[in-house]
Amino acid sequence: MTKTITMAHGSGGSATRELIQKVFMRSYATMPLLEGNDSAVLPMPASVDAGRLAITTDSFVVTPQFFPGGDIGRLAVCGTVNDLACAGASPHYLSAAFILEEGYSQDDLITICLSMARASEEAGILIVTGDTKVVERGHGDGVYINTTGVGFLAPDVELSGAACRPGDAILLSGTLGDHGIAIVSVREGLSFETDIRSDAAPLYALCEAVLKAAPGTHAFRDPTRGGLASTLSELAEQSRVAMLVEEQAVPVRDEVRGACDLLGYDVFQVANEGKMVAIVPAEQAEAALAAMRSAPYGADAAIIGEVQALATSSEKPQAYLRTPLGSRRVMDVLSGEQLPRIC
Amino acid sequence: MTKTITMAHGSGGSATRELIQKVFMRSYATMPLLEGNDSAVLPMPASVDAGRLAITTDSFVVTPQFFPGGDIGRLAVCGTVNDLACAGASPHYLSAAFILEEGYSQDDLITICLSMARASEEAGILIVTGDTKVVERGHGDGVYINTTGVGFLAPDVELSGAACRPGDAILLSGTLGDHGIAIVSVREGLSFETDIRSDAAPLYALCEAVLKAAPGTHAFRDPTRGGLASTLSELAEQSRVAMLVEEQAVPVRDEVRGACDLLGYDVFQVANEGKMVAIVPAEQAEAALAAMRSAPYGADAAIIGEVQALATSSEKPQAYLRTPLGSRRVMDVLSGEQLPRIC
Repeated sequence: MTKTITMAHGSGGSATRELIQKVFMRSYATMPLLEGNDSAVLPMPASVDAGRLAITTDSFVVTPQFFPGGDIGRLAVCGTVNDLACAGASPHYLSAAFILEEGYSQDDLITICLSMARASEEAGILIVTGDTKVVERGHGDGVYINTTGVGFLAPDVELSGAACRPGDAILLSGTLGDHGIAIVSVREGLSFETDIRSDAAPLYALCEAVLKAAPGTHAFRDPTRGGLASTLSELAEQSRVAMLVEEQAVPVRDEVRGACDLLGYDVFQVANEGKMVAIVPAEQAEAALAAMRSAPYGADAAIIGEVQALATSSEKPQAYLRTPLGSRRVMDVLSGEQLPRIC
Repeated sequence: MTKTITMAHGSGGSATRELIQKVFMRSYATMPLLEGNDSAVLPMPASVDAGRLAITTDSFVVTPQFFPGGDIGRLAVCGTVNDLACAGASPHYLSAAFILEEGYSQDDLITICLSMARASEEAGILIVTGDTKVVERGHGDGVYINTTGVGFLAPDVELSGAACRPGDAILLSGTLGDHGIAIVSVREGLSFETDIRSDAAPLYALCEAVLKAAPGTHAFRDPTRGGLASTLSELAEQSRVAMLVEEQAVPVRDEVRGACDLLGYDVFQVANEGKMVAIVPAEQAEAALAAMRSAPYGADAAIIGEVQALATSSEKPQAYLRTPLGSRRVMDVLSGEQLPRIC
């Protein structure tokens, strides 16, 4: 077997089978995958609401594929796990599908798969089925990954982006902008005094802790592409409310703030891959905050604002920033492209 | 909004949201999608074994994206539905994730999405969640699609590629090679006396009919990439048996046979996208055949061979062809590439 990917690896013949056995089965080594059937047949876990399941999908085209704090494989697991977590769903089963470019390094592919294996172990999700396609040079970019996750909800969990209510507190689980700035640093060859690392992390344990401490939680959402601005704007639209964020309450690392100033980025539009926004009734906000801070990846959590009613029925549902001087301005949603292929 | 895909459509900002609303939500119009949450939360259907689910994933990179008998959208739905059907799982929920190349036509994208909507309606599966990424020109090829399917099994269904037993009959639901030859015809600008059309079709109804008529069925598998040769070889390995196919019993259209001769292809290695292999105990084979022939897309079904025990413990598990003259030869598994990007 050569050390690069060839078109034959996508043929469905013997080279495909060899790649599956050598790279994917060896890296993940989960039983459903090793059985080698076209579909994985899986048990419904005990202790969940057997009447509901959650499904989410994400493709990953990030460039570069390796960066401080992670790689495309870790991202592909965490991104999908976090979308399940947004529904309050415990992550259980993950599919992993690869589109490889002819000539890609098999060693890099193995490194990525091992990273996926580690991230899925950390997240408590099982890689159960996969697919591999190969495209000719110049029709891909090394490796693109799709992951689709299946999760299950506890009987009493009811979350929705449409459930935010005036008076709710807006919580953020940590510092903004780390992932986006880590990627752009590598891409542009920038170096800052302190290394900025991607925050890519699986957040179900954090969400579970919040749900336990604040069972009235209305919504979770992870501020990935488009950043906090897109996330809050979407929630505002779904719930027909305004979102008011206190600018000085939002945790941002000094070096990330500095990089944003240098690059002309709005940190509220920069992608995060290990942060969660929670919308929680005011009376449960402190409990939710304490739970976040005690949970993995939640040490820097903060209450950053509150949900407000629209002043008039014709007011546009959107997100606002209150500056340290007390003035209020719209939190701009990214309209063009800022950092293409950030995830 | 411009009529081509721009990098901004992958930004996660307002252009992304516009594309989702204009193209995807409008084409599919399913409720879970319209709710716009990060994960779709879905009911477990009644009348299934609540203890088990089936998951399968496939990415589609076929070129060209439009071909006689179908397009990449129909393929993306049918391919995943058929992998669920291989487990005997009724198709219920489908995710659809797109990797678009900058400059791709929005009209073509809409055509593909509408084709997916039609195919999923025919297959009885609901598109419930999605994702869109955009890559720069020269890093994709118009559109790549990943679909991941979730299905459920009836309480008594137990199928596995490892369950084939000596004496079992091998059934094939129709003619071999139509998809592969349809694609190569368009790609190479060949024309044959009769148009050869892709067989892309959803096959769960056919599998369900077989399971009802022949509840002892041991395995289903769809002979896609790598063709019947790969499929039977994989089943032989999983079950540690030999597969003997009577060459003259295998239905092949004359024009497909002619094209294979012309192109130097082995029809047993050519991809199919609307055919199913069933491995059925001998005593239920006729009932299974009758069920296939009465089911959608099964009119040309045939019993094409039988499973045999390995002669010695050291014999390699593989598939064989018996020619009309009675000689037996190994059915060669594709070793290099034949038709890249066939699905």
